[in-house]
Amino acid sequence: MAEISVELTKTPKKKPQDEHHLPFGDIFTDHMFLMDYDEGQGWHDARIVPYGPLPIDPAAMVLHYAQEVFEGLKAYKTQDGRILLFRPEENFKRMNVSNERLCIPPIDPAFMIEALNKLILVEKDWVPSLEGTSLYIRPFIIATDPHLGVRPSHHYYFIVILCPVGAYYPEGLNPVKIYVETNYVRTVKGGMGFAKTGGNYAASLKAQDEAHEQEYTQVLWLDGVERKYVEEVGTMNVFFQINGTVVTPALQGSILSGITRKSTIEMLRYWGVPVEERRITIDEIAQVADEGHLDEAFGTGTAAVISPIGELKWGEKHMVINSGEIGPLSHRLYDTLTGIQWGKHPDPLHWTHEVK
Amino acid sequence: MAEISVELTKTPKKKPQDEHHLPFGDIFTDHMFLMDYDEGQGWHDARIVPYGPLPIDPAAMVLHYAQEVFEGLKAYKTQDGRILLFRPEENFKRMNVSNERLCIPPIDPAFMIEALNKLILVEKDWVPSLEGTSLYIRPFIIATDPHLGVRPSHHYYFIVILCPVGAYYPEGLNPVKIYVETNYVRTVKGGMGFAKTGGNYAASLKAQDEAHEQEYTQVLWLDGVERKYVEEVGTMNVFFQINGTVVTPALQGSILSGITRKSTIEMLRYWGVPVEERRITIDEIAQVADEGHLDEAFGTGTAAVISPIGELKWGEKHMVINSGEIGPLSHRLYDTLTGIQWGKHPDPLHWTHEVK
Repeated sequence: MAEISVELTKTPKKKPQDEHHLPFGDIFTDHMFLMDYDEGQGWHDARIVPYGPLPIDPAAMVLHYAQEVFEGLKAYKTQDGRILLFRPEENFKRMNVSNERLCIPPIDPAFMIEALNKLILVEKDWVPSLEGTSLYIRPFIIATDPHLGVRPSHHYYFIVILCPVGAYYPEGLNPVKIYVETNYVRTVKGGMGFAKTGGNYAASLKAQDEAHEQEYTQVLWLDGVERKYVEEVGTMNVFFQINGTVVTPALQGSILSGITRKSTIEMLRYWGVPVEERRITIDEIAQVADEGHLDEAFGTGTAAVISPIGELKWGEKHMVINSGEIGPLSHRLYDTLTGIQWGKHPDPLHWTHEVK
Repeated sequence: MAEISVELTKTPKKKPQDEHHLPFGDIFTDHMFLMDYDEGQGWHDARIVPYGPLPIDPAAMVLHYAQEVFEGLKAYKTQDGRILLFRPEENFKRMNVSNERLCIPPIDPAFMIEALNKLILVEKDWVPSLEGTSLYIRPFIIATDPHLGVRPSHHYYFIVILCPVGAYYPEGLNPVKIYVETNYVRTVKGGMGFAKTGGNYAASLKAQDEAHEQEYTQVLWLDGVERKYVEEVGTMNVFFQINGTVVTPALQGSILSGITRKSTIEMLRYWGVPVEERRITIDEIAQVADEGHLDEAFGTGTAAVISPIGELKWGEKHMVINSGEIGPLSHRLYDTLTGIQWGKHPDPLHWTHEVK
């Protein structure tokens, strides 16, 4: 296993004083992890260095052809001062799935967990303590060959940056209003939808913008082929509880394999709640809503963990779910998953990893 | 109209000596054009500065969410020493179409043509003279907010870099072998296929890699919905001559509106050759090939101009087109378009723009 060199900053930043008002994704810590890839040499020169701008050639392929992948996870501080990660091995395994689709060389997940541990220990005073706060971790890979033809790059940077973030819901867990997107498509089978790569997010911006103009929080994406199967909600996976059974779209190539999605399914099974991964049409959702059988709906993702959906708009049809209130299942899942993440609850499925 | 400041390099690079062996996309000139966008301020600080690395924050949105668009065109040196551009207004108009889809603020095409003129005059000694060589021009916009949430950026760079390039076919215009892609999808209606943005190219890398492994030059993309309508070939638009009539896929949201495509259609009409923009299934192509009615096939794009297709493989079926030779129509189009671009032929449709 390669050495990881450490160069500490000589000009540490002032840490945020008010953990009640931490923004999401705007404050970065003093250091970052960096590693190079060169064809013939593999990944090399793993290092922890002061956070700062990267000198990037204007012809770097990432700026033109979006050959880039990323991950997102969090470090949580427990009440007794330990720092926990939540299933980090899943992130680095998924990163290799994204790498394969984007023609980026694979990374070693075990080495990356070691590197991440080391980076977080250097930055341990940046992990906020207030309830609901955490240290957001963003590993990403970018193609840096200065070359203007379309082909996989021969050089890459692997970078990890860290970002103390506030509670995603500073005013509590409020259900969001979502509309069903019938014009734009996020991705399609045969495309890159299952990979965590910039292009999927670029494709989603316009629909998100239009949703905000109409005072909706996000859109519910339908499949790009038949435009009837439910896929994701904004940048989250989506779940519905129908007559007691929880259903979520099956992974079929166009849906991101979310780690909160996987954890939600596993926790529901652990509890004995029936859960199905299958195709779900928007017509089915509308029908069960009409019949009074749509108990709850929620999105799952790293940032929000569980995001209850209070209203779905599909064309002229408005479906109010659980009277626009948080349902008991969403609440139980939120409390359990966040309880495990912050070390307040037992961890029966052994998901947390202590940084030490 | 804003001023464009100029800061000349103090360390000019050595220009390539051997124009017979210019690579494509690896050599960059001494200067680049740069302009900032800030919310509330608009595009500002247009400037020509020495070419060099950009200091980019590792959290810059382009590196994570691929909010980026680009264009590609060329400057050509005529035998009497003038420098011509080919329909540059079309590139900047199309850039605004891409911008709109990617939630990037629009640019002023007239100003950009002025800026491009100025940049090329600064770099006029970098425009190569040898037959078939040119100065490739890459305007692009990248989102640079250091922010890890998914939303349109509030700051952008507009950059133009220049790259002397060799003849695309140093050994002459040889027909290429293409296979019909039935697994991967480039884009789909409702997606970003009509925009010139990184994500579409990232999505294409894997298929291109697999084509190369099978010793094919590129893939022919089918639509992502029914997987039967022909869309593009590699990074080019595609044309077929069937029984004397030229057909090309109609623009329906998933196909890039190529400027060489448009020029090909207009030139064919000028010549009185029948040309149709419509949906074309791969079954129709296979059928007319079997019946001996597929006269010619070719791709169109800025880099290659006209790229004749000598063979199409679709599953187990091999279609050899015009005995694998360049057809007379492909040849006439190539000679005419490149003749206009290099100022050797009359320009009946007024496509060229002299840099002065």
